[in-house]
Amino acid sequence: MSQTRSHSGLLIEPDGGKLVELFVDESQRDLKRKEALNLPKIKLTKIDVEWVHVLSEGWASPLKGFMRESEFLQTLHFNSIRLEDGSVVNMSVPIVLAIDDSQKNQIDGSSSVALVVDGNNPIAILTDIEIYKHNKEERIARTWGTTAPGLPYVDEAITHSGNWLIGGDLEVIEPVKYHDGLDSFRLSPSELRDEFTRRNADAVFAFQLRNPVHNGHALLMTDTRRRLLKMGYKNPILLLHPLGGYTKEDDVPLYWRMKQHEKVLEAGVLDPETTVLSIFPSPMHYAGPTEVQWHAKARINAGANFYIVGRDPAGMSHPLEKRDLYDADHGKKVLSMAPGLERLNILPFKVAAYDKTKNGMALFDPSRLQDFIFISGTKMRTLAKTKESPPDGFMCPGGWKVLVEYYDSLDQAENGGVSEPVPA
Amino acid sequence: MSQTRSHSGLLIEPDGGKLVELFVDESQRDLKRKEALNLPKIKLTKIDVEWVHVLSEGWASPLKGFMRESEFLQTLHFNSIRLEDGSVVNMSVPIVLAIDDSQKNQIDGSSSVALVVDGNNPIAILTDIEIYKHNKEERIARTWGTTAPGLPYVDEAITHSGNWLIGGDLEVIEPVKYHDGLDSFRLSPSELRDEFTRRNADAVFAFQLRNPVHNGHALLMTDTRRRLLKMGYKNPILLLHPLGGYTKEDDVPLYWRMKQHEKVLEAGVLDPETTVLSIFPSPMHYAGPTEVQWHAKARINAGANFYIVGRDPAGMSHPLEKRDLYDADHGKKVLSMAPGLERLNILPFKVAAYDKTKNGMALFDPSRLQDFIFISGTKMRTLAKTKESPPDGFMCPGGWKVLVEYYDSLDQAENGGVSEPVPA
Repeated sequence: MSQTRSHSGLLIEPDGGKLVELFVDESQRDLKRKEALNLPKIKLTKIDVEWVHVLSEGWASPLKGFMRESEFLQTLHFNSIRLEDGSVVNMSVPIVLAIDDSQKNQIDGSSSVALVVDGNNPIAILTDIEIYKHNKEERIARTWGTTAPGLPYVDEAITHSGNWLIGGDLEVIEPVKYHDGLDSFRLSPSELRDEFTRRNADAVFAFQLRNPVHNGHALLMTDTRRRLLKMGYKNPILLLHPLGGYTKEDDVPLYWRMKQHEKVLEAGVLDPETTVLSIFPSPMHYAGPTEVQWHAKARINAGANFYIVGRDPAGMSHPLEKRDLYDADHGKKVLSMAPGLERLNILPFKVAAYDKTKNGMALFDPSRLQDFIFISGTKMRTLAKTKESPPDGFMCPGGWKVLVEYYDSLDQAENGGVSEPVPA
Repeated sequence: MSQTRSHSGLLIEPDGGKLVELFVDESQRDLKRKEALNLPKIKLTKIDVEWVHVLSEGWASPLKGFMRESEFLQTLHFNSIRLEDGSVVNMSVPIVLAIDDSQKNQIDGSSSVALVVDGNNPIAILTDIEIYKHNKEERIARTWGTTAPGLPYVDEAITHSGNWLIGGDLEVIEPVKYHDGLDSFRLSPSELRDEFTRRNADAVFAFQLRNPVHNGHALLMTDTRRRLLKMGYKNPILLLHPLGGYTKEDDVPLYWRMKQHEKVLEAGVLDPETTVLSIFPSPMHYAGPTEVQWHAKARINAGANFYIVGRDPAGMSHPLEKRDLYDADHGKKVLSMAPGLERLNILPFKVAAYDKTKNGMALFDPSRLQDFIFISGTKMRTLAKTKESPPDGFMCPGGWKVLVEYYDSLDQAENGGVSEPVPA
């Protein structure tokens, strides 16, 4: 594990700079709610609400709301936005709000709109709005590098969305809550910074994940900490940061992943003293090298200064062809060259695999190829589904039990049982 | 016509900075030719040769040859490349060389290859090579913002090209010549800079074109000069810079365009004293907002400091749908925000149309809508094909005659006559 960014000798402090939060003052909430009720209303989808959440807390700071056209174009063409002072910030995925013709007509000449979940519940006001064309084909091609049908986020959030985008400044009336028993894990960037300060962190290394944590992941994280200590840091803190927004259907749902992550901490596979487990509220694009920049940038805003990047980050199989959609190395390479991320310290992932001689996960040693077994995510899911046990030492037993429970619950749902877990 | 780039008050001098030319020293040519004959050989297509030409003269400076993977990825994702000193240069279209499996195998472990037009004619050596995957779908999606079949450059140069790209440093043995009677018009960036100096230019404004010049274009160019004079420049020079590389089949061929442009200068529609007519050797991508950055960047390298950008630059119709492929305003907007082009002075095109009250082309005045006729490129071509005359004042008669001659020659070719014009 070494720094790939040779052009910058500086390590940034665990502080992402000035954070733009978009909440209205608590004393103004009622006033804003009343104001909102008199404005044209845009009903948000579940993913739209996730983006409001993301924007409101400053994960995409300095963005002040859904993108206007100039931000959208810069994101598509340059994966970065130039600010008025000439400086450049990374911004690789469009954070946009789509509306259809009838919504556009309804807005008419109004310069502000209310964003609502249902008719009486405005969650935000979008001011100084700008409406522009939503060229879906171009957005998809430039974001994913393909227009093949079957991209999960595209199917879910773009294909059937409106032909216009509406940008503007966001005034969020109340913090977004999900009431799913996990809200206490949803720390905002500012709350995370406070937590890192409280823990006296002198380095924060972030690990983005949307899968259960096996001992191979854990090994990489503990190895990273070891190396940071060796570099001279006294108290490196791990931000274990599962993605909490939209994920594709065959990913393990957040509820079960969080249960699994807690077991991993309980079992001491990761040290709770030096680990902050929190939820990253963004939806998932599965846009590989484009999206990994977003994943890193958002974590900088939350105070991370080291980012662990793995093989094929935010990647998936090509929806039509028998291959990975992205070159497995491109994510790491693109991240290391991305504008606006010059000061991020990137920690490329080593490969961990099951070492038969040690009955456990170990850093892969190509000179002993025959000693290792690679257990892919697909293999892991198949084992859990069929209630087979993985090799000893692959995952802590408590964590594995959660996975088996999850697939059990799916079976029960298929057989007419209850599918949704009841939050504790 | 005004400067859109408000964040930079500075106007750059007509000098694009240090130019990297890639020619071997004349005294070394024979040696290099002999060296090349002992290397694995890659046979170039016509478009490959055009790129060798482009690279050799420094239009893409500071690129030192066909892109290696890190340059390719930065071009696709960021439309710009970061140099070792941390500065950023614009680079929006991939300048790459594709090879197939058998060529790759033939290269084996060699670190250099010869680029040949035919077996005994090596035109360049590519050194310190790097071979990497040619993901065509991703390249196309990220460059064009669509993967629709029927994109001219894609059909011509990508679809049937090899599955690998080979990058490296280029040593060009001899300047590329075409022997088509037009080589004297192919001034290199360095020759153009000298020419501007010779003419004592204190401003150089570039006009990229791939169509015949009508009086509307001419009006915009003369109007630009007038405005530059008003801004205080004493001797603004126009670089009339038709694209000379690959163009799609229904565009008017370079030979006829050059004939037409010369008539326009002869007729004094453009002033030969303040106009440099030269050929830009690049092939055409028809990639709209992505490509217009390349068109501007290359002209900066040739010493231009003002760039005239029109409606829908480098655009075309969507190959499948009944609409323009790109939003007509995106080219201008993207250009004004492009990394590495911060110091370019962009002159947005006004709209010129045929003014019936003046029997000539004039700047469009929306308050007198009924007085104007818009004559599209398609309309112009149809008129010339059917030998109808355009309205008086649309184009100088000598220029129009050239167009009619061209379409006549096509008819003759269809009827079994000679199709290729014989260069003078």
